[in-house]
Amino acid sequence: MSPMRADEMAKPTGRPRDPGVEASILAAVQDLLIESGYAGTTIGAVADRARCGRSAIYRRWETKAELVVAAVGALQIAADAPDTGTLRGDLLGAAMHFARADDRTARVLASILSEIGRDEELRDVAYRVVGGPPVAALTAVIERWIERGEVRGDAPVALIAGLVPTAAFGSVSLRRRALEPDAVVQLVDEVVLPALR
Amino acid sequence: MSPMRADEMAKPTGRPRDPGVEASILAAVQDLLIESGYAGTTIGAVADRARCGRSAIYRRWETKAELVVAAVGALQIAADAPDTGTLRGDLLGAAMHFARADDRTARVLASILSEIGRDEELRDVAYRVVGGPPVAALTAVIERWIERGEVRGDAPVALIAGLVPTAAFGSVSLRRRALEPDAVVQLVDEVVLPALR
Repeated sequence: MSPMRADEMAKPTGRPRDPGVEASILAAVQDLLIESGYAGTTIGAVADRARCGRSAIYRRWETKAELVVAAVGALQIAADAPDTGTLRGDLLGAAMHFARADDRTARVLASILSEIGRDEELRDVAYRVVGGPPVAALTAVIERWIERGEVRGDAPVALIAGLVPTAAFGSVSLRRRALEPDAVVQLVDEVVLPALR
Repeated sequence: MSPMRADEMAKPTGRPRDPGVEASILAAVQDLLIESGYAGTTIGAVADRARCGRSAIYRRWETKAELVVAAVGALQIAADAPDTGTLRGDLLGAAMHFARADDRTARVLASILSEIGRDEELRDVAYRVVGGPPVAALTAVIERWIERGEVRGDAPVALIAGLVPTAAFGSVSLRRRALEPDAVVQLVDEVVLPALR
């Protein structure tokens, strides 16, 4: 049971938009996606959970689809391209982002998988927020080491930069959790590095 | 619109079980999963589509979950471990199964992705029918070439045999179609073979 479950619905207040309200609505959407799936994430359930009125939701997002897109967009995934001085160190640093996604992020993503295949906007935001930054970091690392001459110049960068993210996607989909750090290390050592050399 | 959409529901006949009825029910479930998703695949809709009564369905499967498991189990995926005389030829032969899954199979699988994460029995049958046989073929090929001395003895077989299947899973999930044959060839040449040697 969540402490946020309301026994009563607050009335919309008519005051200027409160960013705290927006954040609590989006957190409620994430909670409900995890607990009840996409179909169970109704506007009414979100309003109950966030202790606001339906109008507070509809004032900000016209449809459930838009609301879910916003809730996925609110998941924060940081990903930098580390510069450790070695190819392996840089690859591990960038790839390890996929082991760091917290369970909440993994479970929200797992809940929208079927809709990701149907809804292009949702797929785009999910990729931009969750997949895009660490893939960009891996790509930057590989390109840096091509310039430095340690990675073969004809390496298919996009294909190889996609290996760990694809494995992470499978893990989130089938197991509802991020890759383990050991699995990232094994992929880098046994697959990514041999493919780059 | 499908020619199988019935304008009237046939009454259950009470005759002995007809394998043709069973096949048409399972085909109707697959059709509905593709068109309407898991949530839209109701027993009533299946009965309409298969032109049978609900009792013809409930006589065979107690729950919708069991019915969907049976419909996924009815997707036929053949996968042998080819013996072409070369490591690359064998790998391509086994991996190419993932480019051969027809669109129907890919779209049925895509429709149950969210449920696969929730329903262990569905995940098991989906893996057994669709993922298991070609993974077994790839594993057999790699082990054969370890014995023949062309693959390093310490290669992580399960990890490497899983690369193409994992990419295929991502393709089905995000694009609702199987890998292209070119993508399979590139994975084998640029990633799988370097990892094995």
